[in-house]
Amino acid sequence: MGQDTTIEASGVSGQRGPADHKRRQQILQAADEHFRLYGYRKTTLADIAKSIHLSTPYIYKFFDSKQAIGEAMCWHCLGAALSEIEESVAQAKSPVERLRRVFIVLEGFTWRLLSEQRKIQEMVSASFEENWESIGRFREGIFQIVRRIVIQGRESGEFERKTPLEETARAISRITELFYHPKLREQSGKREEDEALAVANVAIRSLTA
Amino acid sequence: MGQDTTIEASGVSGQRGPADHKRRQQILQAADEHFRLYGYRKTTLADIAKSIHLSTPYIYKFFDSKQAIGEAMCWHCLGAALSEIEESVAQAKSPVERLRRVFIVLEGFTWRLLSEQRKIQEMVSASFEENWESIGRFREGIFQIVRRIVIQGRESGEFERKTPLEETARAISRITELFYHPKLREQSGKREEDEALAVANVAIRSLTA
Repeated sequence: MGQDTTIEASGVSGQRGPADHKRRQQILQAADEHFRLYGYRKTTLADIAKSIHLSTPYIYKFFDSKQAIGEAMCWHCLGAALSEIEESVAQAKSPVERLRRVFIVLEGFTWRLLSEQRKIQEMVSASFEENWESIGRFREGIFQIVRRIVIQGRESGEFERKTPLEETARAISRITELFYHPKLREQSGKREEDEALAVANVAIRSLTA
Repeated sequence: MGQDTTIEASGVSGQRGPADHKRRQQILQAADEHFRLYGYRKTTLADIAKSIHLSTPYIYKFFDSKQAIGEAMCWHCLGAALSEIEESVAQAKSPVERLRRVFIVLEGFTWRLLSEQRKIQEMVSASFEENWESIGRFREGIFQIVRRIVIQGRESGEFERKTPLEETARAISRITELFYHPKLREQSGKREEDEALAVANVAIRSLTA
């Protein structure tokens, strides 16, 4: 996320005032820089305001709280992961390959966050721990992608049709969490490409029964 | 774990001196009481020593550190979970039912820990975060149980035999983590019997393909 990138804040709660206001972008950019340098927890709203010569009350015209800024940033990050999955899935020819890619992209995305964007990862980790709205939206996004792939596989005859669609899609999207939950990945502290592939294969075989 | 229960400390590292020494049990019981009342993090070796009128250096005759005591307690707790799975699995008639029980027992055990033994759960949670030896042994224990069930299912002809045994057993035992990892369960904060059953069914269908 560079200086010129627009941070998409729409749709998460705690946002106030006009969505396309230049000030909002300026605040988000300043927050992004602070979070990257000092981390989410150590940054205050006053720090952000000061760095762009605004008053803290002025910030409240756009955001309810620091968490509201965090939500916007977090959703920017997790929304990017969903987009990356969507793009990868769109290029795959079969439902089997599409499902595999959901696991693989999630594994890689989380690893990059962990290894290259340590401070942003800390914020995302905090958001998981506190169950922020953006996490719920992210989980729902993954569920919808998995659900769509399962439907496609059922329609093409590659996947079984006996099990309840919602339950099956819910269970498989739940399993993907093994490779994107920040705590689990922090604790393992390594790439898990083989593991993600092996677990993806379990999910795939359950559908191709 | 009551006053009369022996805490099985053998096999985890950081233990010193004779395994069956009465003093060792006394220290572990005192530690158990302190951890339950004040939590693992807030208890010091000196607190434990003082409560049973021993000196801190004397404690070092039996344990390397507070963590060594924690390891013994943690393994006592997680070892009990493994025993509960073993007992439940032994009563099930088919490999399918056995595998299901691994998920169900893990879900229930972790829930009881979370809801009834808050302070012990805190210690187990810390041990996951710091990747204590007892966690590695626990994971290996689950893997061995799953592996054995997969072998039984292959021998009886109920499970497929095409996939590599180790990879498959490893992947399925990895999936069980969704229902025993303290952080994941803390965050969900509810019973997850239906979820565990749905995910178990994915694993089972992958084997009965």
